[in-house]
Amino acid sequence: MLVFVLNAGSSSLKYQLINAKTHELKASGLVERIGIDGILKHEIGENKKITFELPIPTHKEAIELVLRILTNDETKVINSIEEIQAIGHRVVHGGEYFKGSAIVDEDVIQKIEELIPLAPLHNPANIMGVKICKELMPKVPNVVTFDTAFHQTMPIENFLYAVPYADYTEHHLRKYGFHGTSHYYVSNEAIKILNKKDSKVIVCHLGNGSSVCAVENGKSISTSMGLTPLEGLIMGTRSGDIDAGVIPYLMEKKGLSHTQILDYLNKKSGILGVSGVSSDLREVIKASNDGDKRSQVAITMLCERIKKYLCSYAGLMHGVDAICFTAGIGENSDLIREKVCEGLEFMGIELDKTKNSTRAKGNREINTKNSKTKIYVIPTNEELVIATDTYNLIKK
Amino acid sequence: MLVFVLNAGSSSLKYQLINAKTHELKASGLVERIGIDGILKHEIGENKKITFELPIPTHKEAIELVLRILTNDETKVINSIEEIQAIGHRVVHGGEYFKGSAIVDEDVIQKIEELIPLAPLHNPANIMGVKICKELMPKVPNVVTFDTAFHQTMPIENFLYAVPYADYTEHHLRKYGFHGTSHYYVSNEAIKILNKKDSKVIVCHLGNGSSVCAVENGKSISTSMGLTPLEGLIMGTRSGDIDAGVIPYLMEKKGLSHTQILDYLNKKSGILGVSGVSSDLREVIKASNDGDKRSQVAITMLCERIKKYLCSYAGLMHGVDAICFTAGIGENSDLIREKVCEGLEFMGIELDKTKNSTRAKGNREINTKNSKTKIYVIPTNEELVIATDTYNLIKK
Repeated sequence: MLVFVLNAGSSSLKYQLINAKTHELKASGLVERIGIDGILKHEIGENKKITFELPIPTHKEAIELVLRILTNDETKVINSIEEIQAIGHRVVHGGEYFKGSAIVDEDVIQKIEELIPLAPLHNPANIMGVKICKELMPKVPNVVTFDTAFHQTMPIENFLYAVPYADYTEHHLRKYGFHGTSHYYVSNEAIKILNKKDSKVIVCHLGNGSSVCAVENGKSISTSMGLTPLEGLIMGTRSGDIDAGVIPYLMEKKGLSHTQILDYLNKKSGILGVSGVSSDLREVIKASNDGDKRSQVAITMLCERIKKYLCSYAGLMHGVDAICFTAGIGENSDLIREKVCEGLEFMGIELDKTKNSTRAKGNREINTKNSKTKIYVIPTNEELVIATDTYNLIKK
Repeated sequence: MLVFVLNAGSSSLKYQLINAKTHELKASGLVERIGIDGILKHEIGENKKITFELPIPTHKEAIELVLRILTNDETKVINSIEEIQAIGHRVVHGGEYFKGSAIVDEDVIQKIEELIPLAPLHNPANIMGVKICKELMPKVPNVVTFDTAFHQTMPIENFLYAVPYADYTEHHLRKYGFHGTSHYYVSNEAIKILNKKDSKVIVCHLGNGSSVCAVENGKSISTSMGLTPLEGLIMGTRSGDIDAGVIPYLMEKKGLSHTQILDYLNKKSGILGVSGVSSDLREVIKASNDGDKRSQVAITMLCERIKKYLCSYAGLMHGVDAICFTAGIGENSDLIREKVCEGLEFMGIELDKTKNSTRAKGNREINTKNSKTKIYVIPTNEELVIATDTYNLIKK
């Protein structure tokens, strides 16, 4: 079954065409700067790359363009759009309504719209993607997969904030967590490798956005992101955990409104804010190697924050069988993995430095022989989860 | 040397009269509801307790009353005020100016006043206490001891927030930490018992306000409170760590200003907010035992948050030699200590349940024989630290 996987952002569109049964990736790509000018980077299989630069005024035109490319001459991977049997959409926020993926109907759309206040930047774009697909391919079923769904298994003591209880019951104020599709995929891969009945796994998803998740017996029981994706780890431009008292303090010092301060904590902070160099960790590591003090501090802060969550989740689960690193930084930065694991021998975590610094593709083990806890690098594949969920729901 | 130790709050006054050389406690007490009506609870030595209820309109009248009681007939412990040789004041915020206690002069007063924006509720009351004493006892030297001073040894990567660096250099935005006098006293007691050259100690100060501190070789290297005392653990009425994104969300949902929301997170949240029962943990434990679900959740949240910091600080120091419990809850609640230590055997932390639940006075060890990490209950004594610091500075 050919599934078209779509991740619609406010000015971007990520897509893949996947055979959900064989897992074959037919084509993938990314449209950016929609409504500004427009750039489309398209890949066929794993070798052929094409870049288009042309005005792309709307998301609808972006999707139409992608569908043309999939069926046209040079770039053809299918003969007709009719070959697409289902569409799987990534949706950020499923609130407490969605504990798994769902086939789109009017009720589902209404619920995703209801949740817009919880994800004002993401859910509107996600739902727009669904609506455009329904218009362009009215006969093809749509499935939505939520970033929050995997974390719906968290017990109440791990998702509540210590505020008046009525804020939860009346205003839905709680931890939701994000990157659920990735945490599910990676922990599931780890559990398959562990081949153990009861399992305690920690996933470090370290990318542009980053979060850690404690997965006990295949279920998310705690995660570092919260009501919003600001909480938790230090990210490219996000502060992560911060004293809430900072907000009024900065509002007064800088004469900014509360929404401006939130924007400041989301977009000007994190690695960029501390280092002053870049939000791209590779550039900050380079500056650090060249002796830049603030870049060195930023990297130490980043790693200590990850270590903090790692140790606290090990404590929460009363031990840990496997730690998994995934996403851009997690898969590619041996330096960050080494600094995160450093000094944790006392709790049975021992990294093999040689294995850690050997570049390789696919899932791999990087702990020493004697390490009680396994340490894995597992490349994430959120699109495959979306395609598989879509396939499983549609075939019923 | 007789030292009068004073802790002036906005409507309260705590005091002790201590012989700083022999550590003998002559008298102690607490004045509350100053400016409202007035109540004074006075203790002589460890046996005699007297309560006065009378109008106490100002802090000056409160201190005059205490000085009269110390020298008058029935309650006499000294013949004349002249016997008081020095006064030691607790001051909450010393910013980056004070890395230890200081003899009061004009410059010191000016600096404490400069720091009012960082502790708007506390520093004004603390400085008022100093000024009244200078007026009432002009010949007696005053010393100030800061709640923040002990944490001034934190390395930059542990005190910075991941926000633009200029917020630190221009607006002094950083973690300061509080309860420093208690963390110093308790860790120092632990180090004496450990009798080890290099030491890794974690202090859990669990009282009305609560914080955890990582103490490496006698120096604070990280603590859970931050710019303000809101950050970190869940407390009686304080939320502790919370997604900063909660603030604008609640402002919109509840129609409150940012200062009102901060007040809400400081005064209506924490154990009180979750349980709906009380800010007093003893009452919440009672309700929990009676089957109240929300009280059970509140207690689990409280303990898991402490465990989270405990494990992350063990990770930060690459191990831990001793964990210390102190302050009201830390010294008295075997239930909380048990739940905090539960399941941490994998990292060498083993509580002896019998020792833990045996009531006793003074410093005591409550770990099993085989536990790699020592677990201590150490009653805190901040006043003794203030008296000793005062004595040491004055005798020079």
